[in-house]
Amino acid sequence: MTAYEKLETRARRLYVLGDALGILSWDREVMMPDGAAPGRAMQMATLLKLRHELQTDPAMGELLDAVEAENLDEWQFANVREMRHGYLHATALPGALVEPLEHARSECGHTWSKARGDNDWAAVLPKLEKLVALARDAGKAKADAMGLPLYDALLDEYDPGRRSAQVDQLFGELEAALPPILDAVLARQETQPPVIWPKGPFSTERQMALSKRVMALLQFDFHQGRLDVSSHPFSGGAQGDRRITTRYDEDDFTTSLMGTIHETGHSQYEAGLPQKWAHQPVGDNRGMTIHESQSLLFEMQAGRSREVVSHLAPLIQRELGGEGPAWEPENLIRLYQHVKRGLIRVDADEVTYPLHVMLRYRLERQLMAEEIEVADLPAAWNEMMQNLVGIVPPNHKDGVMQDIHWYEGIFGYFPTYTLGAMTAAQLFATLKKAVPDVMTQLEAGDWSGLIGWLREHVHGQGCRLSSDELIEFASGAALSTAPFLGHLKARYLRDAA
Amino acid sequence: MTAYEKLETRARRLYVLGDALGILSWDREVMMPDGAAPGRAMQMATLLKLRHELQTDPAMGELLDAVEAENLDEWQFANVREMRHGYLHATALPGALVEPLEHARSECGHTWSKARGDNDWAAVLPKLEKLVALARDAGKAKADAMGLPLYDALLDEYDPGRRSAQVDQLFGELEAALPPILDAVLARQETQPPVIWPKGPFSTERQMALSKRVMALLQFDFHQGRLDVSSHPFSGGAQGDRRITTRYDEDDFTTSLMGTIHETGHSQYEAGLPQKWAHQPVGDNRGMTIHESQSLLFEMQAGRSREVVSHLAPLIQRELGGEGPAWEPENLIRLYQHVKRGLIRVDADEVTYPLHVMLRYRLERQLMAEEIEVADLPAAWNEMMQNLVGIVPPNHKDGVMQDIHWYEGIFGYFPTYTLGAMTAAQLFATLKKAVPDVMTQLEAGDWSGLIGWLREHVHGQGCRLSSDELIEFASGAALSTAPFLGHLKARYLRDAA
Repeated sequence: MTAYEKLETRARRLYVLGDALGILSWDREVMMPDGAAPGRAMQMATLLKLRHELQTDPAMGELLDAVEAENLDEWQFANVREMRHGYLHATALPGALVEPLEHARSECGHTWSKARGDNDWAAVLPKLEKLVALARDAGKAKADAMGLPLYDALLDEYDPGRRSAQVDQLFGELEAALPPILDAVLARQETQPPVIWPKGPFSTERQMALSKRVMALLQFDFHQGRLDVSSHPFSGGAQGDRRITTRYDEDDFTTSLMGTIHETGHSQYEAGLPQKWAHQPVGDNRGMTIHESQSLLFEMQAGRSREVVSHLAPLIQRELGGEGPAWEPENLIRLYQHVKRGLIRVDADEVTYPLHVMLRYRLERQLMAEEIEVADLPAAWNEMMQNLVGIVPPNHKDGVMQDIHWYEGIFGYFPTYTLGAMTAAQLFATLKKAVPDVMTQLEAGDWSGLIGWLREHVHGQGCRLSSDELIEFASGAALSTAPFLGHLKARYLRDAA
Repeated sequence: MTAYEKLETRARRLYVLGDALGILSWDREVMMPDGAAPGRAMQMATLLKLRHELQTDPAMGELLDAVEAENLDEWQFANVREMRHGYLHATALPGALVEPLEHARSECGHTWSKARGDNDWAAVLPKLEKLVALARDAGKAKADAMGLPLYDALLDEYDPGRRSAQVDQLFGELEAALPPILDAVLARQETQPPVIWPKGPFSTERQMALSKRVMALLQFDFHQGRLDVSSHPFSGGAQGDRRITTRYDEDDFTTSLMGTIHETGHSQYEAGLPQKWAHQPVGDNRGMTIHESQSLLFEMQAGRSREVVSHLAPLIQRELGGEGPAWEPENLIRLYQHVKRGLIRVDADEVTYPLHVMLRYRLERQLMAEEIEVADLPAAWNEMMQNLVGIVPPNHKDGVMQDIHWYEGIFGYFPTYTLGAMTAAQLFATLKKAVPDVMTQLEAGDWSGLIGWLREHVHGQGCRLSSDELIEFASGAALSTAPFLGHLKARYLRDAA
């Protein structure tokens, strides 16, 4: 076997272990009896440890050196580049930090999940301080090993190749452009008929049937996937076994329906990755910015469009048995395009969402740079909410304690939500030119033009290119704020001056 | 760390990997979408390979040598004995045989599962010939390494320490005793009122609710377990996460209800294993004879007794909404104690079941000893069915092709069904003396006396003792046919001369 072949064999084992972890993780959220949690934690920790041992095996380093002398085609070359990147990340973290960090993550996350409901900042504060200290140490070690600023080394885990200088530039543009847009959108919305909320109850069974109908429309393959219920919706599973979850509110079908479209976008990305490179780094998804661009392209660009909501309206009405003006397409479009200054990121519309992300991006950068400390977070949060969104949370639960990320030691992830939204807008603008009748297709319930274009220009590219190269390959231009801002103006201010 | 501590750490990893495999395997049978089968096969093969590498790591052999010099208590000593046994089994199989054997197993099993329905012996014959040749090679290698006759080396995998000389002796006694008992039982049955079969349909939902009621009666802990539906019922899952499955026939609730009691017996054994030794060989179940003794004690000894069926009758009637004489306790007792010469092992009553097992035991011994060849099996099967059970299958499907075991390369497993039935009878006879009012308790729906005694005398013993030592520890006597034969006479011939 050549060094390259040996590397492929090792990579396959790593990815197949990842698949096993994907199923165990799905089962934990969806099927596992509550008393089995400690055992499941052991199973997953053992598989993660085995995977980490394989990832950091010195033989990997030797093979990565040896492969330099071999002739590789473009995809193989990219595959080795990604292997090197994974090896660098895995070996950069000092062995002595692995277990304390995992332990602090699980302890703080566990404390948070209870303390959040109780609005109990004091309970989570010491755990988060401990976790932030370890996350800084880990970040420093990674920064040293990778020759990057600390925050960039963290960001690179979730969006390989992404650097904070670029994020600062793009977010700076958004921060200047969004407030006047938001004011104009809210002013225009005032002049429109108010949203009428469809009245429930909507049984879980009927909502589940509706979700499956809509997923089928979005070409979700139920022979290689499932839809289930979990308390936190996610898209997971394994290669060739895509599992998405949702949760149903019997008083309100609208959130879970759009959530299902969002998760189907994630899932379709995974399903469209290059089969030939399955279980290899080059066949993997291209990080969280691209991943989120796919879910947001499905949900925000397509799913909440006039055309898609018009097509879904009679389907929704039939499946849920609704009647009256609340079920009219025009009302449902207003509902799904409603904009509001709110406290909660996950409930935010696409106009205000970036403001929530910018707040978190700034705070976590300052936190990692030791410019602020954990104890300063609540006050800093509230002040920034006032400045960016214009409202202040009345409690910690709806403020600094609302997201799980930091409490699980995840720093450097938040910007990918808004980078993903920008990417989605840029890709969708290109798609509309490349497939000129795509909106007509969508209005007729036909997603094949949209999915076909993504399969070829995004999904099927795997990790052949970097994230930014992929955006340029697919859209013909570097990532910019213009398509996103243009989209907001077109959708929310179309008949304004 | 001492050598002993290092061995414990290694063992824990092996068992935790086994738990992960248990959940993946459960998911495959219960949840997995059909298109995900190839991926799941890769995941499981990878985990099995990782486990095999850990099991056969030369460092294991060194630690097993080094630990001889250390002071160990009784349980630790037994733990090391079991580790040594596992290491011997794992290393005995030549590395070059592992993959061809796995491949032939999966190929033949796959062919069988299609060919059985088509009654197509010719399709499966060449695959089974290949598999049997490899199984013989594997058996010879194990026999050499362990200093045992070939069949004993195979038997030892499923029931460690069990030897065919003892099985021959016990089965010889049964073979002499059973035919006259069977004749007498059938003659007596003729004089009794015929069984009236309750008329369906019985909806899956109501049967599921009934199963859960009955499992709760049997103290199944739903915080550490689940009940689901699969096409082949089994008891599986992981430590602290016991999952049993059943299948529902809407025309007949009786089989699945008793099947659930059977699987709950398996599951309660696993749940009662010594917590302190979880994820160690000495805390594992004591092989398939003891395992089957627990399911059969629940199902045959207790579950089909007059007392338990009398208690269940009104519960069944209420949950399924039945009415009339078919639902009377006396009729349900007759139904659950009905005896019949039949073709199918899994449908057999406890009087004829051992005859089905003896046939398989004899044929697989001859097959492994090269006294017969695969091509001879159908004729040999039919001849032996005539001699032992008194009927001949009209086709292969209900004859030589009915069980999956051989087609998955499992040789040496069959005798444990009947050894388990004998053990169940012997343990239950002891239990009735140790807990004199146990039948009154059971008639009142109280399984705590039964389960409490098993927890202490069987479950909680793990692998501290050998299988035969455990039977003697719990019952005060070596395994014998007398309690089993006594049980059959008492239940089926109680008012006969």
